[in-house]
Amino acid sequence: MRVGVYGLGRFGKFWAGLLTQKFGPVLGYSRNRKDDLPAGVQQVSEDELLQADVLFFCVSISSFEDVIKAVAPRLKPGMTVFDTCSVKMYPVKVMKSSLPHGISVIASHPMFGPDSGRESVQGLPMVMHPVSVSQSDFSYWRGIFREYGMEVIEMSPEEHDHQAAYSQGVTHFIGRVLQGIHLQKSLIGTVGYHKLLEIVEQTCNDPLQLFYDLQRYNPYTSEMRTAVLESFQQTLGMLKSDET
Amino acid sequence: MRVGVYGLGRFGKFWAGLLTQKFGPVLGYSRNRKDDLPAGVQQVSEDELLQADVLFFCVSISSFEDVIKAVAPRLKPGMTVFDTCSVKMYPVKVMKSSLPHGISVIASHPMFGPDSGRESVQGLPMVMHPVSVSQSDFSYWRGIFREYGMEVIEMSPEEHDHQAAYSQGVTHFIGRVLQGIHLQKSLIGTVGYHKLLEIVEQTCNDPLQLFYDLQRYNPYTSEMRTAVLESFQQTLGMLKSDET
Repeated sequence: MRVGVYGLGRFGKFWAGLLTQKFGPVLGYSRNRKDDLPAGVQQVSEDELLQADVLFFCVSISSFEDVIKAVAPRLKPGMTVFDTCSVKMYPVKVMKSSLPHGISVIASHPMFGPDSGRESVQGLPMVMHPVSVSQSDFSYWRGIFREYGMEVIEMSPEEHDHQAAYSQGVTHFIGRVLQGIHLQKSLIGTVGYHKLLEIVEQTCNDPLQLFYDLQRYNPYTSEMRTAVLESFQQTLGMLKSDET
Repeated sequence: MRVGVYGLGRFGKFWAGLLTQKFGPVLGYSRNRKDDLPAGVQQVSEDELLQADVLFFCVSISSFEDVIKAVAPRLKPGMTVFDTCSVKMYPVKVMKSSLPHGISVIASHPMFGPDSGRESVQGLPMVMHPVSVSQSDFSYWRGIFREYGMEVIEMSPEEHDHQAAYSQGVTHFIGRVLQGIHLQKSLIGTVGYHKLLEIVEQTCNDPLQLFYDLQRYNPYTSEMRTAVLESFQQTLGMLKSDET
C-alpha cells in the first residue's frame, strides 16, 4: 500500500514522518520543494502522489477547497482520502461535494503536532469521522491509529467543531493575545505562569495561517471569542466595583 | 526560637505546616478558630502569638495594614517580622511606617501555595527583601529557605511588583476571565488546552480576595490589564482584516 501526504508544511512533514514508522517509505508532495524532510519521506510529483492508495491532505484549511477541487478529477480510483484539518464541518462539506464517487473518504483531526507530539503521540486525541467509507476500511484505520497509541475518538464534525472552539480554539486565541504583550521569562515566575508561557510558545510556533483558519472556518469560534470578551469586561467590572 | 504564623487561611495553614518541618511546633493564630490545621501547628491566643521570636503575617493584603497597626504596639521587642504578601511595595510601606524601632523586618513573597507546592517546594521562587534587618539575620533566613530547596531571589519591592504583574498577575487575570466561560474537560482537549484548564483551576482555587488584592495593590497590574485588552482588540481586528 502506497501512502502519500499532500502538503509538507510544519504539520505535513511531522505527519509524514509518523507514517513512515508504520508504512515504510511515504510519498510526499508540496507546492515548493522541501529540503528538510524526515527520513523515509520521498518527494514526488503531484501526478505521482495522486496515484497513491491512501492520501492524507495536510494543506492549510484556507487552501483546502482549491486543492481538493484541483486534484479531484485526477485521483486514483478507489483511493482512500483523509483530511487532517483542525476544523471538521468545512472540509467534510468540501470533500462531500467535490470528491468523485468511488473514493473512500475519512475526516480526521490529529489533535497534536510537532511540539505536543514531539516525544510521543501516546494518549493524544485523534478525531475520526467516516464520511464515505466501508465499515471495514474505517476499522482498519482506527486500529492503525490505536497501534500508534493515539486516543481515537469518533465524533461528528459538528460536535468536533463545537468542542474544539472551546478547547483548542480558546487556547490558540489566548496564546495569540498574550503574544501581543511580549511576556518574558521571569525568575519569579510561578508554576502557573510557566504553563502560560508554554501555551504562548506552543500556539505561536504554529503558522499564523492556522490561527486565522481555526478562528474563521470553525462556526463556533466567533461565539467563543465573544464569550471571552464579555467575561473579560465582567472581570474588569468586578475589580472596579470591589474598589468602591 | 518560637516561630509563629498570623492568619491561618489557605496560605497561612500551608506555610505554618511547612515551618513545622524545620522548627518543630509552630504557633498559629487566626481571627476564627480553625479545626483542620497541619500537625505541629498549635493554635494560641493573639497575645501569646505576639510574644513569638519570629512572626510570619499570612493575612490578606487588604487587611494587612489594619492588622499591622493593631498589633504593632504589642509585638515582642526584638522580634523578626515577615510579611508574605503577593505584592511587595504596599506592605513594605505599611511595615516601614507602622512597626516600632527594634523590630527586624523582612519582606517576603513565597511564590507558591498549597497547589503548586503540594508535592514539593523544590526550585520554587521565594522573593526576599531586607527592609530593616541585620545582614547576619537576613543571611540566616535566606539560608533556611534555601535548605527547603526554594529558589531564593533578592529583589526590590518595585522590581518584584513590576515582574509579578506581568507573570503571576496576568496568569490570575486570565484564569479568572476563563473561569467566566465555564470551560469543560474535553475528550479532544489538546496538550495546550489541558495546561489552560490547570491554570484556571489553580488560580481559581485561591481566594477571590487574593485575586482582587493582586490586581488592586500592585501598581503595575492596571497597565498590564490595559495591555492585554489592547492586544485582545488587536487580535480581533487581525481576524477581521484577514477576512476581507
